[in-house]
Amino acid sequence: MDIDAIEAAATRLDGHAVRTPFLNAPLLDQIAGRRIFVKAECLQKTGSFKYRGARSAISALSAAEQAAGVLAFSSGNHAQGVALAAFEMGVPATIVMPSDAPELKIANTRAYQAEVILYDRVTEDRDQIGTDLAATRGVSLIKPFDNPMVIAGQGTTGLEIAEQCRASGIETADVLVCCGGGGLSAGVALALAAKAPGLRVRPVEPQRFDDVARSLVAGKHQTNAQMAGSICDAVLTPTPGQLTFPILKAHCGPGLAVSDTDALRAMALAFQYLKIVLEPGGALALAAALVRADGDDDVIVVASGGNVEAALFEQALQHHRETQ
Amino acid sequence: MDIDAIEAAATRLDGHAVRTPFLNAPLLDQIAGRRIFVKAECLQKTGSFKYRGARSAISALSAAEQAAGVLAFSSGNHAQGVALAAFEMGVPATIVMPSDAPELKIANTRAYQAEVILYDRVTEDRDQIGTDLAATRGVSLIKPFDNPMVIAGQGTTGLEIAEQCRASGIETADVLVCCGGGGLSAGVALALAAKAPGLRVRPVEPQRFDDVARSLVAGKHQTNAQMAGSICDAVLTPTPGQLTFPILKAHCGPGLAVSDTDALRAMALAFQYLKIVLEPGGALALAAALVRADGDDDVIVVASGGNVEAALFEQALQHHRETQ
Repeated sequence: MDIDAIEAAATRLDGHAVRTPFLNAPLLDQIAGRRIFVKAECLQKTGSFKYRGARSAISALSAAEQAAGVLAFSSGNHAQGVALAAFEMGVPATIVMPSDAPELKIANTRAYQAEVILYDRVTEDRDQIGTDLAATRGVSLIKPFDNPMVIAGQGTTGLEIAEQCRASGIETADVLVCCGGGGLSAGVALALAAKAPGLRVRPVEPQRFDDVARSLVAGKHQTNAQMAGSICDAVLTPTPGQLTFPILKAHCGPGLAVSDTDALRAMALAFQYLKIVLEPGGALALAAALVRADGDDDVIVVASGGNVEAALFEQALQHHRETQ
Repeated sequence: MDIDAIEAAATRLDGHAVRTPFLNAPLLDQIAGRRIFVKAECLQKTGSFKYRGARSAISALSAAEQAAGVLAFSSGNHAQGVALAAFEMGVPATIVMPSDAPELKIANTRAYQAEVILYDRVTEDRDQIGTDLAATRGVSLIKPFDNPMVIAGQGTTGLEIAEQCRASGIETADVLVCCGGGGLSAGVALALAAKAPGLRVRPVEPQRFDDVARSLVAGKHQTNAQMAGSICDAVLTPTPGQLTFPILKAHCGPGLAVSDTDALRAMALAFQYLKIVLEPGGALALAAALVRADGDDDVIVVASGGNVEAALFEQALQHHRETQ
């Protein structure tokens, strides 16, 4: 994995991925007591950065592999990214999802023409089903983060941040990135190390699910004690990826963790001042910038996704109104 | 008013205004039964396109005029656009607002360091206060739409649409624009006439406030029978502007009108599929595209603003959930 792979991915994504804007709101800066620049990946196709990695990985397959099709297991943003990228490229896609996934996400994935295979989260093993299916069908498994071409695709976000910071006159700053398995954090960190060495990635996780932060401290893989109990469903992974962790260790600053309440408040402030929709897991980095867990300098925030149910979004707005 | 004025405004805005993204969501296209491309001006600074016109007008003043200051009367988006543009340029700004304007808007305007002068909407005449103040203080009045430099600034949105359509391979389409006094519609129409003649502006207004549509049919200024009674407060103007109407007559297709209910639904769908926040008046064009009041071809929509109170936004989401 190096910068060449990320630049090659950028070429493959050109004209397909949205070059997402770099937003700033002076009134939000006043509330925060610092300047915050927001890379709005919620405006990416399918509502999250995951489309970048998916399109990068599928477009890197050979013509024969593309004709055979791809498979992903995911209940969320990665599934939609793979389904849309595959659909755009005429590649058959199979998505393995838990049968208790939100109906809307299943319907969305089907609307991208993917074949959805449901499994029982309690009695069946997702990895086994996925691996078996990939083997039987001869299709390519697109893992959500432990795939070099996926990491390269997510890294294109970092190339854009480097350019956008240059245009805004920002040379030195922390770049807070919402972090699950670490694909986005690793890709952005690699891109910035090559293109804007004054910018440093710091992964942000939900409190009690800060496996990456603890792993960075320990220098080796740490695991979360639980896999449920946060509203930030998009970033709940048990431990850093095998491919992503060495990159994170080499290039990232210390990790940060914020509470669900802070994530909800960040969603409400993003609504009010930036006019973007964030899901809880996609609001973690903004939350960290607002509570200033990382200091009080100018800061860059990657707002990684906006796929949130209306009811939960209403709850975030209501909570904010009541506590103002 | 010609394309040179718009291109000069674009040069003055370069590095200041956000080049807003051109969003598309395949799942929204499926619901609409057509391709919809959304120019997301809600992501512009201050949450609406008004910043463009304000910055264009203030930056076109002489150094002496800038030092003396500017004045605007507005309870909404124009006030915030003028206040921020003036603040950025070190120009003193006075904003005349009704004393019953939402507290948040008054607070926001003050937060941009503008001097806010409140008047009583019932007993006092806003225009008189504004004109008197401008004369006494020797400041420049920045009208919301009947100002050539404001129209030129709004027209920069059209330059970007022309480029973004070219990049997306769109040569012929209607461009639906949320319309109040007609500054945005006129500016965009002028820009497209010069840069992308296959793209035609159609102004969109709230039902019962369709003075522009009726004026275009009649060929002369028509007036709305009422000035209140729609949630689309940002676009409730009595009659087309003196400067804007001749431009609209020369370059626009027929006007469209949509209901408040359609505007609320468009807000909910923009939340769900585009991850942007729209206010009712800023969602009119998307609403027209969704109800297909304008046909069923590919369509461009200018989503002009996102300054909406949380309570009203929650209402839009709830209404949509209940009727799905």
